[in-house]
Amino acid sequence: MIQITLIQIDNYGPWTVTPGPRFEPDLQTLQSRLYGDLEREFGAHNAIVFFNRFDNLIAISNGMDYEAHKRIQDSIRNRYPFTISMGVGTASTAYEAQKIATKMIQMGGGAQSADRCEVLNIDSLASEDESIVQIAHIDINDITNTLTDVENAYDTSISVYDVLYNLMIELKKVDSLCFFIGGDNYMAPSNKVNPNTLRDVLQKVDEKTGVKLKAGVGIAKYPGRAADLADIGLEDIRANKTDDSVLFLED
Amino acid sequence: MIQITLIQIDNYGPWTVTPGPRFEPDLQTLQSRLYGDLEREFGAHNAIVFFNRFDNLIAISNGMDYEAHKRIQDSIRNRYPFTISMGVGTASTAYEAQKIATKMIQMGGGAQSADRCEVLNIDSLASEDESIVQIAHIDINDITNTLTDVENAYDTSISVYDVLYNLMIELKKVDSLCFFIGGDNYMAPSNKVNPNTLRDVLQKVDEKTGVKLKAGVGIAKYPGRAADLADIGLEDIRANKTDDSVLFLED
Amino acid sequence: MIQITLIQIDNYGPWTVTPGPRFEPDLQTLQSRLYGDLEREFGAHNAIVFFNRFDNLIAISNGMDYEAHKRIQDSIRNRYPFTISMGVGTASTAYEAQKIATKMIQMGGGAQSADRCEVLNIDSLASEDESIVQIAHIDINDITNTLTDVENAYDTSISVYDVLYNLMIELKKVDSLCFFIGGDNYMAPSNKVNPNTLRDVLQKVDEKTGVKLKAGVGIAKYPGRAADLADIGLEDIRANKTDDSVLFLED
Amino acid sequence: MIQITLIQIDNYGPWTVTPGPRFEPDLQTLQSRLYGDLEREFGAHNAIVFFNRFDNLIAISNGMDYEAHKRIQDSIRNRYPFTISMGVGTASTAYEAQKIATKMIQMGGGAQSADRCEVLNIDSLASEDESIVQIAHIDINDITNTLTDVENAYDTSISVYDVLYNLMIELKKVDSLCFFIGGDNYMAPSNKVNPNTLRDVLQKVDEKTGVKLKAGVGIAKYPGRAADLADIGLEDIRANKTDDSVLFLED
Repeated sequence: MIQITLIQIDNYGPWTVTPGPRFEPDLQTLQSRLYGDLEREFGAHNAIVFFNRFDNLIAISNGMDYEAHKRIQDSIRNRYPFTISMGVGTASTAYEAQKIATKMIQMGGGAQSADRCEVLNIDSLASEDESIVQIAHIDINDITNTLTDVENAYDTSISVYDVLYNLMIELKKVDSLCFFIGGDNYMAPSNKVNPNTLRDVLQKVDEKTGVKLKAGVGIAKYPGRAADLADIGLEDIRANKTDDSVLFLED
Repeated sequence: MIQITLIQIDNYGPWTVTPGPRFEPDLQTLQSRLYGDLEREFGAHNAIVFFNRFDNLIAISNGMDYEAHKRIQDSIRNRYPFTISMGVGTASTAYEAQKIATKMIQMGGGAQSADRCEVLNIDSLASEDESIVQIAHIDINDITNTLTDVENAYDTSISVYDVLYNLMIELKKVDSLCFFIGGDNYMAPSNKVNPNTLRDVLQKVDEKTGVKLKAGVGIAKYPGRAADLADIGLEDIRANKTDDSVLFLED
Repeated sequence: MIQITLIQIDNYGPWTVTPGPRFEPDLQTLQSRLYGDLEREFGAHNAIVFFNRFDNLIAISNGMDYEAHKRIQDSIRNRYPFTISMGVGTASTAYEAQKIATKMIQMGGGAQSADRCEVLNIDSLASEDESIVQIAHIDINDITNTLTDVENAYDTSISVYDVLYNLMIELKKVDSLCFFIGGDNYMAPSNKVNPNTLRDVLQKVDEKTGVKLKAGVGIAKYPGRAADLADIGLEDIRANKTDDSVLFLED
Repeated sequence: MIQITLIQIDNYGPWTVTPGPRFEPDLQTLQSRLYGDLEREFGAHNAIVFFNRFDNLIAISNGMDYEAHKRIQDSIRNRYPFTISMGVGTASTAYEAQKIATKMIQMGGGAQSADRCEVLNIDSLASEDESIVQIAHIDINDITNTLTDVENAYDTSISVYDVLYNLMIELKKVDSLCFFIGGDNYMAPSNKVNPNTLRDVLQKVDEKTGVKLKAGVGIAKYPGRAADLADIGLEDIRANKTDDSVLFLED
């Protein structure tokens, strides 16, 4: 079972334009700080957060209970000009778990409701026995030599976001999620997806976008360790330890 | 003339996996901090930075000279485990300017070259007389009620990134750039694009993606002010001060 | 038993002046960030860090084991231009525990040795059974009306640092520590100090410095909770729930 | 003329205990972040901030006008759960300038008044012609070998804060200020103090505290450059380029 936490800033949209629109560089700083802070807080519990849309962030939170979430929620209230709500869901696939997590937040009220404040709704937690996280770390083969160092920066970005969108779509079809994590890197919480399926997903995206993708995949009880294994898998492919486009590692 | 700065972390890829892969939540924190810090530093000069790919960031930097860039470059070296290189270009359109900025960095060496360190190549600066920045702030109509509060979080994200990719493509066709700035918001440095052209761009993306877009557009000597005007324009559309999907404001 | 961690930046002095002196505002930012980050990391474990000298920070770390320390040490290496070493000691008083923690670091090499890197020496950890933390939160009576709002800022600061120095000296005599935590606030890890003794300490400092001090004192298994209780105690004194200058709270 | 800005968090004390006392590690993080951010913002203008008491910070701000202060004030409001007020004063000595800056804030209301919000009172600005800043960077001779590496951490801190307090007192007598900047380092805005006077100040503190102090002193139009020169002066003394305990450098 994979446990997903959806984090949403309370009533953020209206705040950004009250009394008038706030200075955009300030908002960008604020959002990046929130993301960095949540990454630290969840990271301290071996969990991992993806920025997603910055005002709606998604975490893999296996191992974290109500108290751990609550302390983070309190800490944000104590340091930011806004509060956050959280919903937590657990399921056998990441897509299903985020669906439940979303419901848990929506039950508490709308994202732009002035009444909703610091909802923390947990549908269920992954027990230690059942906890399992599969993460794929996907990147583009040799992007530095084929794009970054030869194309202009914006055209490279178009390729990177084209790949992102197509990965998002294809991975959804196999009940997985996909997030951009910078550079030419993507992370996909992908419980239950086997090597054949993932290989197919990557190939489909390769064909649509004209790049060549590879993926290290880690399977572990907790997110931090799964991500570590995924990184090692990716390094092993880069080091030509396999000819395959995917490499699965499990503790 | 719009002035664009491309900021690239020196030799970042190799560093992230030396001696072994570094903990992903640490890297995510690091990247978000770098983005937040650069946003502050450029923001202090009324400029604005977009995270782009996090290891390659793009700024509108009209008003900033060699010294201002140099101080930021030094400051990063003094606080981060890596250094950054910068290329600066100026042109009548944003797309052209980033092309020159990219060349300026590429001239200094590859993104994964261990030899390249703290390149700061400026092709030309926008003089005060010629300086002009046009920024469009684009968002999705009523996303909270149509998506965030009713769809699951991931499906909403797919829509948001679908829009992003299509905006990137369509705006490139009119020599503009487009960046995601969180939520359902996008910013497009778009010098020389007139209301008719922008209206067409939005409509094309509307049709492809099934959402409805609108844009406030600010035109000013410097980026911070242009962004402010764009925000005000967007607020005016939201407040039904116009029926149009675009509203241009200029000092 | 109270558990103290001493955190020391490795070879920091030489780094700050290599190749030439680094820009002081950059160093100040760097130090404040390190402090803020360590506070978050330790805070995520219900522990608490005091900035002390910024390059030598002191934490009460009951409840944190080798792994928890190691992950923080790794995380700093992954995000900062330097590394940190840590020594951990446990004793019945805070003064004794920090003495051991210091020895643990010094065993690993000098603070300005280029060879020492990421020492993590633990003499002993406080077991759950024996773990106990006493923290006094001390402040100056009505400083806003007597100093901040009537004196000039610097003269107020002189008073605040005068009190700090005298508290440091007097609390050492009873095997405790004292740290400035901003405003007119001080925190004293003070295991084994009873109300009478603390009352005497405060009175002595009152007489020497001409202000009037009070203290809420929390006693708990872990630092975060002890600090919370101390804060509540201080609030109760402010609310005139007692005439005493000290109020001890224990779970 | 040296220009001093006093920065004060509005109504901070009451906020920290409303509705109940907030978690101390959160407040410590918040304060360190505020300090780091202000340091960046002022640093971007070649100015420098000292943390002082964290809720009352003092900056040397020569070269910064109303707009530059205003943008910082706005930026804090946009990213923090509180606002800040600022007072600015200019005089021939630092002590006098901070006195005026304090008055400017106090005129706007009390530090714990719920009514005061974002005061920005400027008595006068240092014109470019008259602008001059003298900063002494003072440190303790060989503290690593005499204290850090041989004494326990707390006893070393007592020495460092003993020196701080005595420097604060002695430098006030010559109309200067002194701030702790971490490690064994102090910075003293000290316009008009000549080498003989400073030598005497250091000697007096040496005698009272049992350490040996030295100082590099920079004199320049703006604070950043003055600090740079002070750093270079201190390095020159460390490198035995002079036998004197003070070295003045001026552009």
